[in-house]
Amino acid sequence: MNDLSVTVLGLGAMGGALARTFLEHGHPTTVWNRSPAKAGPLVTSGARHAGTVADAMAASDLVVLCLTGHDAVMEVLGAGGAAAAGRTLADFTTGTPDEARESAAWAREHGAVHLDAVVQASPADIGTPAATLIYSGPARAFESCRPALEPLGATHHVGEDPGQAGLYDLALLGLWYDTTLAYLNALALAGGTGGVDPETFAPFAAKQMGYVVAAAQETAREVRDRSYPRGPASLTEHAPVLEHLVRLRGAAKLGTAQFEHLLALVNRRIADGRGDEGFTGIVEELAR
Amino acid sequence: MNDLSVTVLGLGAMGGALARTFLEHGHPTTVWNRSPAKAGPLVTSGARHAGTVADAMAASDLVVLCLTGHDAVMEVLGAGGAAAAGRTLADFTTGTPDEARESAAWAREHGAVHLDAVVQASPADIGTPAATLIYSGPARAFESCRPALEPLGATHHVGEDPGQAGLYDLALLGLWYDTTLAYLNALALAGGTGGVDPETFAPFAAKQMGYVVAAAQETAREVRDRSYPRGPASLTEHAPVLEHLVRLRGAAKLGTAQFEHLLALVNRRIADGRGDEGFTGIVEELAR
Repeated sequence: MNDLSVTVLGLGAMGGALARTFLEHGHPTTVWNRSPAKAGPLVTSGARHAGTVADAMAASDLVVLCLTGHDAVMEVLGAGGAAAAGRTLADFTTGTPDEARESAAWAREHGAVHLDAVVQASPADIGTPAATLIYSGPARAFESCRPALEPLGATHHVGEDPGQAGLYDLALLGLWYDTTLAYLNALALAGGTGGVDPETFAPFAAKQMGYVVAAAQETAREVRDRSYPRGPASLTEHAPVLEHLVRLRGAAKLGTAQFEHLLALVNRRIADGRGDEGFTGIVEELAR
Repeated sequence: MNDLSVTVLGLGAMGGALARTFLEHGHPTTVWNRSPAKAGPLVTSGARHAGTVADAMAASDLVVLCLTGHDAVMEVLGAGGAAAAGRTLADFTTGTPDEARESAAWAREHGAVHLDAVVQASPADIGTPAATLIYSGPARAFESCRPALEPLGATHHVGEDPGQAGLYDLALLGLWYDTTLAYLNALALAGGTGGVDPETFAPFAAKQMGYVVAAAQETAREVRDRSYPRGPASLTEHAPVLEHLVRLRGAAKLGTAQFEHLLALVNRRIADGRGDEGFTGIVEELAR
């Protein structure tokens, strides 16, 4: 038996997976769901079922919210009301950074502490290292709840501002889609116009994307320091390569707009006297 | 001494690096450059200097062209004329797939064989495994010249069609820029609007991009087979995630056009009855 008691509000696929993992790790676990039938299998596994939100909140040190959206979160918090006092509310509901800040403000007003949680995993991966979980909010509250949160997957606390976890979610989701699209576009180009075998092409593409991955930490340091050493090529050297790419794509009747736009950003920085710097400095043009 | 004799036409930074590597590996090496002064250091290292293109072509089994562009290639080939007969012409000049096909046609008409070469390296990396070299053209000619080409770097023959190497170049260059931009956009978003520390964010981003890299071969197989198993999520599951992303970005006053476009592609495939398929099938919408 583990000392830290946990309540889970919302027993959809993800909420159910969280509750099961808390139970498996010996936490006294209380569950609540709008339609109570979903609590059945968890009660069979040892969970206590609470009839009201307030009862569920009062039962545990850590109160996990895993609901359909921010409106449902605010409604459930309202139903909990004074029962939230002294609790840590960990909100796993997906939402914007601003929504997390609103929930955090509600928690402060009601004597509770708010943690925002982002899950990068399918419910089946919860409880395994394949799940990545990102939290933001007060570090002390996070550390107190760590014994219950750690077994859910690879666990990270990224900052005190309640909006940080949501921002990670936003940036990482977009990055997956952008990177996947970059690769599918390369496959479509090579395979579509020239009959290149995708399987022969893949290792070259993986190597090319791998350069970006391998440089990710170094690139981040350059962005933080706002210092952009030339690296393998300076912006002055990138410009003709991009011109070449635009020309090649034009000759192959492919879209050139995105690379022309990039070339314009590169040329703007060269005009600013930054031609000897590396490509990473383009981040300042993107952030404008 | 190595049996295979090599001529290098064009002694810019890259042509010079190629000639030096041939010399270092003991190939009888002849060099020619429009302005002959560039040949000096190579002659000191043991190269023979040819006064005319025809003389340079006649001197060797393998004739490397590393010129400023396709126009220069056609001009130099014209100057070589009948001296090209029986030679393998390896064209390292950057150009489009169609330009490579034009050079190959010229070679055929003059009794020569044409290989198109793409270098993914700076001149300083030539002769090391850090350089990747991609060739297309007749496999037999490539194999005969392999003893001279192999020491230049990691060496790949990707197909018989002369345009294939240029197509790899085009697709891989675009992939590097697209992937790098995806990452810089994520850094700009996380750091710009929310004060996320780039160095804390980087390992999450690297992991996220790493998923795409790790799946590259499997994704390519799906594209080749035109078979798109759902994998971790089906298109029907991607649609609400993309809607969520569009909503989050809108709330954060970020651009949503690219993700709305992607959502439209996903919804088109769902409408086609492909909602249970995986994300890779989007490649068919890109290729349209």
